[in-house]
Amino acid sequence: MAMKKKPVTGMKDILPREMEIRDYAIGLIKETYKTFGFTSVETPAVEHIENLSSNQGGENEKLIFKILKRGDKLLSAVGKMAETVPESADAEKVPDTSILTDSGLRYDLTLPLSRYYSNNANDLPSPFKALQMGNVWRADRPQRGRFRQFMQCDIDILGEQDIVAEIELILATTTLLGRLDFKNFTIRINDRRILKAMAAYSGFAEESYDDVFITLDKMDKIGLEGVKEELLGAGYPAESVEKYIELFSAVTGGAGDGETNDTLAALKLISEKLGDFLDSGISDNLETIISSVEGAKAADFRMKFDPTLVRGMSYYTGPIFEISMDEYGGSVGGGGRYDEMIGKFTGQATPAVGFSIGFERIVMLLLENDFKVPGAGEKKAYLVEKGMPSEKMQKIMKLAADERKEGRIVNISIMKKNKKFQKEKMQQEGYTEFVEFFTDRDF
Amino acid sequence: MAMKKKPVTGMKDILPREMEIRDYAIGLIKETYKTFGFTSVETPAVEHIENLSSNQGGENEKLIFKILKRGDKLLSAVGKMAETVPESADAEKVPDTSILTDSGLRYDLTLPLSRYYSNNANDLPSPFKALQMGNVWRADRPQRGRFRQFMQCDIDILGEQDIVAEIELILATTTLLGRLDFKNFTIRINDRRILKAMAAYSGFAEESYDDVFITLDKMDKIGLEGVKEELLGAGYPAESVEKYIELFSAVTGGAGDGETNDTLAALKLISEKLGDFLDSGISDNLETIISSVEGAKAADFRMKFDPTLVRGMSYYTGPIFEISMDEYGGSVGGGGRYDEMIGKFTGQATPAVGFSIGFERIVMLLLENDFKVPGAGEKKAYLVEKGMPSEKMQKIMKLAADERKEGRIVNISIMKKNKKFQKEKMQQEGYTEFVEFFTDRDF
Repeated sequence: MAMKKKPVTGMKDILPREMEIRDYAIGLIKETYKTFGFTSVETPAVEHIENLSSNQGGENEKLIFKILKRGDKLLSAVGKMAETVPESADAEKVPDTSILTDSGLRYDLTLPLSRYYSNNANDLPSPFKALQMGNVWRADRPQRGRFRQFMQCDIDILGEQDIVAEIELILATTTLLGRLDFKNFTIRINDRRILKAMAAYSGFAEESYDDVFITLDKMDKIGLEGVKEELLGAGYPAESVEKYIELFSAVTGGAGDGETNDTLAALKLISEKLGDFLDSGISDNLETIISSVEGAKAADFRMKFDPTLVRGMSYYTGPIFEISMDEYGGSVGGGGRYDEMIGKFTGQATPAVGFSIGFERIVMLLLENDFKVPGAGEKKAYLVEKGMPSEKMQKIMKLAADERKEGRIVNISIMKKNKKFQKEKMQQEGYTEFVEFFTDRDF
Repeated sequence: MAMKKKPVTGMKDILPREMEIRDYAIGLIKETYKTFGFTSVETPAVEHIENLSSNQGGENEKLIFKILKRGDKLLSAVGKMAETVPESADAEKVPDTSILTDSGLRYDLTLPLSRYYSNNANDLPSPFKALQMGNVWRADRPQRGRFRQFMQCDIDILGEQDIVAEIELILATTTLLGRLDFKNFTIRINDRRILKAMAAYSGFAEESYDDVFITLDKMDKIGLEGVKEELLGAGYPAESVEKYIELFSAVTGGAGDGETNDTLAALKLISEKLGDFLDSGISDNLETIISSVEGAKAADFRMKFDPTLVRGMSYYTGPIFEISMDEYGGSVGGGGRYDEMIGKFTGQATPAVGFSIGFERIVMLLLENDFKVPGAGEKKAYLVEKGMPSEKMQKIMKLAADERKEGRIVNISIMKKNKKFQKEKMQQEGYTEFVEFFTDRDF
């Protein structure tokens, strides 16, 4: 059978130039998060199909790479499935292929972490501060810059209900971004309970909240007027829509794009407007998170209360946050509190907050900005004439060993006929010094 | 549906203690191999099923985790497969499930690297020194200490036909092992062409070589006499078996276990005995490899020519090598030259040599020896009383930020009711210093 040279559809081979940046970023991530007391964990790439299909993953559950059963189990499943294949050409009936699979590739790191914690809680500290980096897979439609295998990088604090967890996550993430030379970015913050209180205050029915939020989420694209039109078009009571839009308008000073100059004043205003619809502790907590992060931040960014921030996943229960960067249109990371997911495994609610950075987007931005990995070190090339006698080869290897011990990069290769071309190519790879060894000369 | 707490069969959750060692080893691997001029590469975990099933993987091809086709392609495959399901209860007929899959999880890193090189050769230096670390998957029968997902760590030099490649690989690997505190280990070395010459010299038919080598490979378990009996039992001519055993006996001084005191003398002896059956350049090259490594080595180990070393994979074409450690019965790594694999993709032969370390076994040995990760740094815990006012929380976060900037580990958590127990638990995690912050006290 002919061998295929390209990677499978939608996945990519990573070349040395990008890997250098990835390796550097991975090292910096581990080093930075460690100073905040996070410890690394790893979960298998393969997860039970039951867990992957448990409605925790939203749209991602449609994108699972499923793994075929093996051996007798596969044959038995095939037999059973055959019975479900339509006998007539009835287009409505499709065979039940779900019985062919018992597992799949994880589509995120949050679900496996919840399983991990419920499986190992007795061996873990409480609260538990976890750093998880690893690939995830989604059978998305292939498109530029989006791949079917990509790295995620999550920090989570499990078992801590106090907002110290939110503060720590935001400080850790922003400190890392600062060390990667990112500047002038924004952390937008909101609370799912504020979102709900705003909808309740306006008189929307509780079962329509999620749909209302999907429209609200488009604010940065269609503006306040666009949101209003879409809500009216969807048939919500005009009175509710009016009240809802007025709230946002008041907070944003009518700017219509969620912009506000004084973030704490905006938070205070919304809290006053919502009155009994919102427990005042919730806005006080957001205020403390914002102030504490602003007071201790180690990077050039600002915190912004943004009542239009929704975050897609329905599992969030409290504060939610997102990183916005001017250089990159969308979000380059985000997270929030999800106090109810782990309970789905353990039967016992465990408070949890997480913050995920968009590792691939960050690497892409670093590549585009021609980021130079600091301290890459001196790169030296030894060019050795072919047929070097054994004793002389020993000497060359010993010289190299001594240099490498000092941390220098020494690349030993056989001298080519076109030595000039060989050196030019190596210079492109960053080799600045060349040492030549000939069979008939002493060294 | 009920959620499953355990990982899928044969895979494992990795706890912080082990991850600390893994992270340290990964960092050291990258740092050490980099000084030898290796650059990182990454290939997707998912590979074309055609490539995985191309007979490069030996027994591993039976252990592939296969990925189900998706969407219409799956439905079409199911329809086709249904036609192959036996209509009667004829046990001989089994449905052709291979059409259900288009890809699978890689079972090693060598095959994906060969595909990677053939896909990207124009963008890569020549020779190309690649470091690849990543998980591989094999649906092996689950057993103690062996998992269905495990990390491999390979270095390969592609496009270099000179033995400088073998020397560099062995020096890089042994330097790494030395830095991980391994001592007194052995690198056994042989050459597939010496193996073949010995079989030819003894008069075995060429088509039986692979079977003869499978028996020879058992030398360390069943001894020279055991090998002799098994070969005779398999029906090989007594004369050939006699001659073959005599060869090994001569080289090992009759010790019967492949042991020899003077490795270069043994190499010389075998070369003399084989005469015209072996190109003398082959044994000269092994001699140069052994001497050069011995002369430049940066760790406590010895090189040993071992004519009984076989290495399983049939794709090897030249020198082969393996790491033996007293603490661990089997091999903890190995490799060799495979000059013909890349040609299967490109149609053009490209010389290649690789050395793979048994990452999981090495981590296991470090764990068992209670390895202490050096320079783990001072670990400090801040315990914060619940309900800390916003201004004071800011101050605490600022104090922590300043300490973290210096590289210290600072873990901030909320003070628990049983503070004594909380501290004891944290001490077990290595926290040595505690700072307490109360809402009603100044700090």
